[in-house]
Formats: sequence, structure tokens, C-alpha cells
Amino acid sequence: METTRDVYLRNCPCRGVLDLLANKWTALAIGALEGGPRRFGELRRRLDGVSQKMLTQTLRELERDGLVTRTVYPVVPLRVDYELTELGRSVSEPLSAIRRWSEDNIAHVERARAEYAARAGVAPA
Amino acid sequence: METTRDVYLRNCPCRGVLDLLANKWTALAIGALEGGPRRFGELRRRLDGVSQKMLTQTLRELERDGLVTRTVYPVVPLRVDYELTELGRSVSEPLSAIRRWSEDNIAHVERARAEYAARAGVAPA
Repeated sequence: METTRDVYLRNCPCRGVLDLLANKWTALAIGALEGGPRRFGELRRRLDGVSQKMLTQTLRELERDGLVTRTVYPVVPLRVDYELTELGRSVSEPLSAIRRWSEDNIAHVERARAEYAARAGVAPA
Repeated sequence: METTRDVYLRNCPCRGVLDLLANKWTALAIGALEGGPRRFGELRRRLDGVSQKMLTQTLRELERDGLVTRTVYPVVPLRVDYELTELGRSVSEPLSAIRRWSEDNIAHVERARAEYAARAGVAPA
């Protein structure tokens, strides 16, 4: 019997999946892999501001959950490629929509922040 | 002149917007408001596992950024309603897609986790 899945329930395993996807670095990493395989160093440079530790952790979780594959090439220096799986590709469109929304609506958000700050009598964040 | 917005750049203001949206509680709160205004207590019950502090903070950020409005009714006990703005409605579809993906793909994710654990020789998470 298929169990009902509901992200609104704290004990549904799907809540943990939402937690992984609803994450800035996940959204950026999956977007950076849309064009094909990338090396760790390429991803590190593309995700401006990510630490080595955070990128390593994000990619490990994505690999564990079947969204990316990790391929190690036995060369010197070691080459490690990351690539989206079919499952990973299937979530890239909504994540891309979230990234685009952030870029397209920042002017609206900044106006809202200024109005909020004016109401609260403080400087905008 | 319009500045180019790029969520991949750490100093782009849109990175902060991505950070707000790419958040489990934001994705759940906006979804819970899709059906119309909700009281704080209703949201608290709907977002199973959220703390009062975390929900307060999430809603305050969404209000500050213009995605929800907060209306206080001067009754006893105090009634506070939250409602999506037009801007908030415009982001609800991609967030809904992320929630649905988490629910629809948990079986794939769990299979990937079991395989990952078998390769690593450890128990699945």
C-alpha cells in the first residue's frame, strides 16, 4: 500500500527532501550542472561565496539522494566530475524558476523593504 | 541603468532573495497561504514541527520583502491574519512544484540512499 506523502507533516520522509531542495546552495549547484558535467573546482568558482566544506556537503547530499553522480578519474591531480542524473534533471526546472524569480523581482523586494523600514521607523536592511 | 542581476554572485542583492525563497519554512508557509488569509495559529498547526519563533521570523521576512501582508484586528484575543500579496502569489507556482517533487519522488530518493549506503558500507540515513 502506498503511503500518503505530505511535506506538511514533520515525520514524512519527503520533508527531508524538501529541506535539501529548498536550500540556496542546492538551487545554485543544480543550476550550475544544467549545462553538463562540471569539476569540483569549476563549481566552487561558479557558486561565488560557497566554502569548500559547504560545497562538499551539498554535493555529497545530492549524490546520496540520487540527484548527481560523482566520477573520479585516476589522474594527477585527481579529477572529480559531477553530473546531474535523470532524477536531478527532473527538478532543475522549478529550481531554475526560483533563481529567475529572485533575479527578476529584486526591485519589487527592495521597494517593499524600504516601505517596511519606513513604517517601522528604521533603516532598510 | 539597470544593473545585471545574478544569483551566482555573492554580492547581488538577489542572492538574499534566493536565500529567503530557498528555505523549507518559506516554501511551506507560502503554500499554506495559497487558499487565502490564515491566522498565525492556523499556520503554526499546518506547518507541523515549526517553532513559534521560526514561524514568526519566516513571516516577518516575507512581510518585509513584500510577499505577505500582516493584518492585526483589534479584538480580544488579538487576531492577526497573513495573506499573500500579488508578488507572493507570483512565486507560489515554482514553490508548489518543489513541494510536489519532494512528495512524488521520495521513493526514488530512498532507493538512491539505500544504494549509496550499500556502496559506502553503512546503514542508510
